[in-house]
Amino acid sequence: MAKFITIGERIHCISPAIRDAMNNRDPEPILQRAKEQIDSGATYLDVNIGPAESTGIELMKWAVRLIQDNFNNHPLCLDTSNKKAIEAGLSVYNPIRGKAIINSADAGDRLDNIDLAAANGAICIALCSKSGVPSDNDERMACCQEMLEHGMELGMEPEDLWFDPLFLVIKGMQDKQLEVLEFIKMCSDMGFNTTGGLSNVSNGMPKNVRPIIDSAMVSMAMMNGLTSAIVNPCDRRLMETIKSCDIIRGETLYADSYLEI
Amino acid sequence: MAKFITIGERIHCISPAIRDAMNNRDPEPILQRAKEQIDSGATYLDVNIGPAESTGIELMKWAVRLIQDNFNNHPLCLDTSNKKAIEAGLSVYNPIRGKAIINSADAGDRLDNIDLAAANGAICIALCSKSGVPSDNDERMACCQEMLEHGMELGMEPEDLWFDPLFLVIKGMQDKQLEVLEFIKMCSDMGFNTTGGLSNVSNGMPKNVRPIIDSAMVSMAMMNGLTSAIVNPCDRRLMETIKSCDIIRGETLYADSYLEI
Repeated sequence: MAKFITIGERIHCISPAIRDAMNNRDPEPILQRAKEQIDSGATYLDVNIGPAESTGIELMKWAVRLIQDNFNNHPLCLDTSNKKAIEAGLSVYNPIRGKAIINSADAGDRLDNIDLAAANGAICIALCSKSGVPSDNDERMACCQEMLEHGMELGMEPEDLWFDPLFLVIKGMQDKQLEVLEFIKMCSDMGFNTTGGLSNVSNGMPKNVRPIIDSAMVSMAMMNGLTSAIVNPCDRRLMETIKSCDIIRGETLYADSYLEI
Repeated sequence: MAKFITIGERIHCISPAIRDAMNNRDPEPILQRAKEQIDSGATYLDVNIGPAESTGIELMKWAVRLIQDNFNNHPLCLDTSNKKAIEAGLSVYNPIRGKAIINSADAGDRLDNIDLAAANGAICIALCSKSGVPSDNDERMACCQEMLEHGMELGMEPEDLWFDPLFLVIKGMQDKQLEVLEFIKMCSDMGFNTTGGLSNVSNGMPKNVRPIIDSAMVSMAMMNGLTSAIVNPCDRRLMETIKSCDIIRGETLYADSYLEI
């Protein structure tokens, strides 16, 4: 059994409260969001510090220690375009409850995040793109193969590359949704792990609609073998849906209380 | 574009209110449930009169006329093991807004409901079973092929047989869920229409859990090509999910108001 892995997205410097907390090294807002997400069942927590070009090294170390010290070494996903900051985060990361995840490599300029993962025994999210949105699944698969080859040359296990198909916004790219889902199936058929920023699909939709369409999307993606997603774990409907799909896929044994577990 | 077809299940003699209304030819309770379901977006209404061995002919005619007269010939699904009653219902049915559906044939004793459908230009739900629960998808597919052949010999179009994989209860048959979903995919890959009693999956679960797991199941089944289901259209979460999956499948054009349409 391999339960679906949720990566909580709510420690993100795009949020003013989190940005301020990061700038001022103020633990409370970050610990609070960490707790909410862990209580909601997030397997991993993403820690997005933005590009953080000048301060990234110290900031990432501080954030990783802060969260792991306070939450029994909860597994983390290190999210920044600053490679030195990722390296610094990995240097203080405790993998006892799960390998660190690097968010993210691609088949273009960010290919060498795979090197970082390989050198540090980490998992790497691998965007199936060279730059921007891939035009079709041939392009996605070409990127996927390139990154896989690169990782394997460096001694990585294929399961430590989590391929991200790039979920696309429905408003404007409705006709691309089945293609993304088909790509997840292709990856699953080859035994690869997959993940991605699920809530991209509902970008720009009314607030009340987003949990509904995100839930529909995650179920369809889970049918096609999606193994993980970057989500808001405080979205109750979404988490209920993920748990239910895990029951249907046979990844969790059914109990009447499965939604509470 | 082929929007998912919902068959509303709430006019069913198992409900005491409906049974009494049928016995007493009391229109109101039936019209009320018809209205609720139509207002909730049900494409078809199922009319289940039970075996109705002695009174079925008159009862089915009465019910079909009652609903169609009051709701602008809303399409119906005639549901009884009494073949004479189905024939009688078809004789007064107005197909202007959709062919009647016969619920249901199987590959065993009820094979000749396909003959009834063929003779009356109706759709027939075709249970992929000879008797009881099929042991695996080979058995389901053998039944499917037998019924298909029979229907085509009688001049039916394949799309007028809606194959029912038999949704199975999770409590007790959790390990069979992916098999059912796989069968839907097999049918879809061959271009066949599919339907079934979706809420079977959540039988015996706590009341608050049922809409959640039913919604997860319908999304996963829609990913695999399910074209219709017999559902409670008053289950809001389920209907929201179906509409959302139709958006993702590209069967409905997205609009911010799509849940209200």
